[in-house]
Amino acid sequence: MEANPYQADAEFTAAERDSVYKCIFKRRDVRGQFLPDPIPDEVLGRILKAAHHAPSVGFMQPWDFIVVRDPMVKRKVRDAFQTANTEAADMFEGDRQETYRRLKLEGIVEAPVGICVTCDRERTGPVVVGRTHQREMDLYSAVCAVQNLWLAARAENVGVGWVSILRHADLREALGIPASIQTIAYLCVGYVSHFFQNPELEAAGWLPRTPLRDVVWFDRWHGRTGEETLLQQLG
Amino acid sequence: MEANPYQADAEFTAAERDSVYKCIFKRRDVRGQFLPDPIPDEVLGRILKAAHHAPSVGFMQPWDFIVVRDPMVKRKVRDAFQTANTEAADMFEGDRQETYRRLKLEGIVEAPVGICVTCDRERTGPVVVGRTHQREMDLYSAVCAVQNLWLAARAENVGVGWVSILRHADLREALGIPASIQTIAYLCVGYVSHFFQNPELEAAGWLPRTPLRDVVWFDRWHGRTGEETLLQQLG
Repeated sequence: MEANPYQADAEFTAAERDSVYKCIFKRRDVRGQFLPDPIPDEVLGRILKAAHHAPSVGFMQPWDFIVVRDPMVKRKVRDAFQTANTEAADMFEGDRQETYRRLKLEGIVEAPVGICVTCDRERTGPVVVGRTHQREMDLYSAVCAVQNLWLAARAENVGVGWVSILRHADLREALGIPASIQTIAYLCVGYVSHFFQNPELEAAGWLPRTPLRDVVWFDRWHGRTGEETLLQQLG
Repeated sequence: MEANPYQADAEFTAAERDSVYKCIFKRRDVRGQFLPDPIPDEVLGRILKAAHHAPSVGFMQPWDFIVVRDPMVKRKVRDAFQTANTEAADMFEGDRQETYRRLKLEGIVEAPVGICVTCDRERTGPVVVGRTHQREMDLYSAVCAVQNLWLAARAENVGVGWVSILRHADLREALGIPASIQTIAYLCVGYVSHFFQNPELEAAGWLPRTPLRDVVWFDRWHGRTGEETLLQQLG
């Protein structure tokens, strides 16, 4: 007898659904609130498993996860950040540059764990189901793994910060990653003293939250016909 | 008196955490199980709100969401898929090509709703916090919105399928999207008759699930030292 190919316990209750929304809305990009407390292997294992169950184009699973705990390696990544961030600050003008310099943008050394997510674009050969006409789909799969990891961490009361002010070549150098492998994300991971209510750039007045109804359209780009009842749901 | 900048109700209980994991593990890429039942605006509104609360580089929120219900527009997208898919099949060899042709890879016309997620790379000006050294970060933000949408839909018992066998130019044409806007994903969205236990490409024997311990490393690429306790957690 074959096993049932359909999911058992497939239905979500309202309480289960609301837990998922709590996670989505309370996830934050953490930069400065990391505690030194170690993350138990059991917790870290669950978070990595969640990342590994992201969708992937052609079931390619193109990712690797490098778990960084060595302080020397973290310092190399932090140095690469500092080089890039000094350059970055010069790209902003006037008051904006002053504000930029005051922003806390990473917790690389303070976070007990770093996780680098990569993409091996050749993992399953040159032709991949679903990548034939959108060559970037494997990179996007690895990004879905990052978002799964981030949400799983939040549900474990663990903070995550994505540090993107880094040259890919410097990150590869710090972690010994070959040039054939694409780096996707360097994540700072750890327990935190608190989670902020609002995104830090929003709270700092850098940019406001866009009203959702300004980015939802119907049937075509900037289409806005006959969908008043949905627009009312968007606030 | 200032409002508390920290999150209230920040802690996740074990039950809340397990609901998030249920969602992550039971999410599927749905191609052939869509029901015609309409999605209530209230549900669709919550799903879009979840997408809008994805992380975004520099709080740029570069996404737009085009909700497609017009059957004529869906047919245009389905035609673009068929053109690309015929080309795609020819790229596989021998038995692989036969198997490919039997795969059900989209539910564009059957799904009651399509959602196209896009990225406006100029939305907040040329210089973006966190995008200075990794120019692709805004595209990745839009991908995080896709993954949030997918998980929120699953928690609403709604299926989602990402159709990537499409030329970007054809998709822009079908939806009237200007060339300055990058298309990220075309998603088929709807209630389903069932969710499969395993990913369809895994069940079809196309590729196996990679053991997690084969893609987790320590401190450097392919580093494997002194982390036996974590490896044991990975199965």
